[in-house]
Amino acid sequence: MAFRSQVTVRFAEIDPAGVVYYPRFLHYCHTAMEDFFAQALALPYPRLIAEHRLGFPAVHLDVDFRSPLRYGDEVAIQVAIAKIGRSSVDWRYDLSLVGREGPCAEVRVVTACLDFDSFRAREIPDWLREKLAGAAT
Amino acid sequence: MAFRSQVTVRFAEIDPAGVVYYPRFLHYCHTAMEDFFAQALALPYPRLIAEHRLGFPAVHLDVDFRSPLRYGDEVAIQVAIAKIGRSSVDWRYDLSLVGREGPCAEVRVVTACLDFDSFRAREIPDWLREKLAGAAT
Amino acid sequence: MAFRSQVTVRFAEIDPAGVVYYPRFLHYCHTAMEDFFAQALALPYPRLIAEHRLGFPAVHLDVDFRSPLRYGDEVAIQVAIAKIGRSSVDWRYDLSLVGREGPCAEVRVVTACLDFDSFRAREIPDWLREKLAGAAT
Amino acid sequence: MAFRSQVTVRFAEIDPAGVVYYPRFLHYCHTAMEDFFAQALALPYPRLIAEHRLGFPAVHLDVDFRSPLRYGDEVAIQVAIAKIGRSSVDWRYDLSLVGREGPCAEVRVVTACLDFDSFRAREIPDWLREKLAGAAT
Repeated sequence: MAFRSQVTVRFAEIDPAGVVYYPRFLHYCHTAMEDFFAQALALPYPRLIAEHRLGFPAVHLDVDFRSPLRYGDEVAIQVAIAKIGRSSVDWRYDLSLVGREGPCAEVRVVTACLDFDSFRAREIPDWLREKLAGAAT
Repeated sequence: MAFRSQVTVRFAEIDPAGVVYYPRFLHYCHTAMEDFFAQALALPYPRLIAEHRLGFPAVHLDVDFRSPLRYGDEVAIQVAIAKIGRSSVDWRYDLSLVGREGPCAEVRVVTACLDFDSFRAREIPDWLREKLAGAAT
Repeated sequence: MAFRSQVTVRFAEIDPAGVVYYPRFLHYCHTAMEDFFAQALALPYPRLIAEHRLGFPAVHLDVDFRSPLRYGDEVAIQVAIAKIGRSSVDWRYDLSLVGREGPCAEVRVVTACLDFDSFRAREIPDWLREKLAGAAT
Repeated sequence: MAFRSQVTVRFAEIDPAGVVYYPRFLHYCHTAMEDFFAQALALPYPRLIAEHRLGFPAVHLDVDFRSPLRYGDEVAIQVAIAKIGRSSVDWRYDLSLVGREGPCAEVRVVTACLDFDSFRAREIPDWLREKLAGAAT
């Protein structure tokens, strides 16, 4: 079953159109990925960086915005892994209003596996690949 | 000739990897679009909203991140319009370091033309279509 | 008993010094005030704005930063009302690490009561003053 | 003469009240401090951090908000140094609308001088104290 994270739309996040500023949707996806690492993998992202010197920066992004988010909305973010490559992970995020059908936004983020010391892409280590694969099914 | 805007990467915009947080790239594109309206069209976006009750929210996004941005970098954002539809505009943003060849990120944003009063998509009015077409060539 | 809200320090909130960017502390206080309205007063701030056309913008700020916040930290924000004036509320926020003694930051925010239609300060209505006073004891 | 920096209020910075979200004022002050280092001291803040391993995090904040900032406003930020202590600098920022009298906000920020390697406060080195004193008169 896919992992779900949740955020409440905050005062600061609303733009002059009265809806969530669109780059903020990507921030929501990043926080959902952080929650996924902490809760689904029991491997908090701060620890992944500090101890394993690894991270997953975005290299490609594909987003369909379907309906706006408004101040106070409770947003469910479903996190799924579509593909685990040699040195990349292909994430899917479905944002929807809690208790409502239909996505507000569908987001695909391809991330590289980055070595924080060399600042270069590297193969995903096996132990991490297994963790990711286990959580993704 | 394409319109160019410029930003300096700020202290606040750097993430724990020491590079610009990726949703921030989309914010840069939005500020470049604001500069485009103000400078290339002589129609500041605040005025477009306040007087004409129109705006251009994102409905689709497609981004390739090619190289990171770092604290203090001077970033050139080239703004181009790829297509003007009946009720949508297809924007291209090329982000690069000032004085360097090659893009750091290539961004495509499809925006709808939104009526701020009804909050529904609407046809781009002719006067605005002409302005956009004139600046896009 | 004072109201407590909680936030997790996110990837996006870390600056090049490896700690939370200081304006972000004020954002945390605002989200804690939003939680206070929703949970302690059962009057969500979005509803206060939309239905009652009232809000509480900051007019004065006084902050002591005592120790930094780092990526992944769980932050408790204690919300208290020090004084309810005729048309202002004097808030205190104590930020501390969950499970640790001693504040990371002590924040005082004086807010005006704003009429969203006239955009002028106004007296706090009696029903709201009672709600605030009840939650503040 | 005091140093002046300038920012344009952006779409992203407006809150549901139609004015600049108040923590954002502090962000404007930080960017003005960055401009001060780059332009008045010819010592860009990124270089101060990278080469000298020094920075100036906030330890105390005192702000009076006098009038709101709106979308599209051009904001002048006057930067002055009120006092240079042994290991602290006391900054004043006056925010006003370009071409208008009277401040929108008056901000005092006390910053410590931080050693980025030990992450402890340290004396301001003499060469930097002289630079700061020279620019402050």
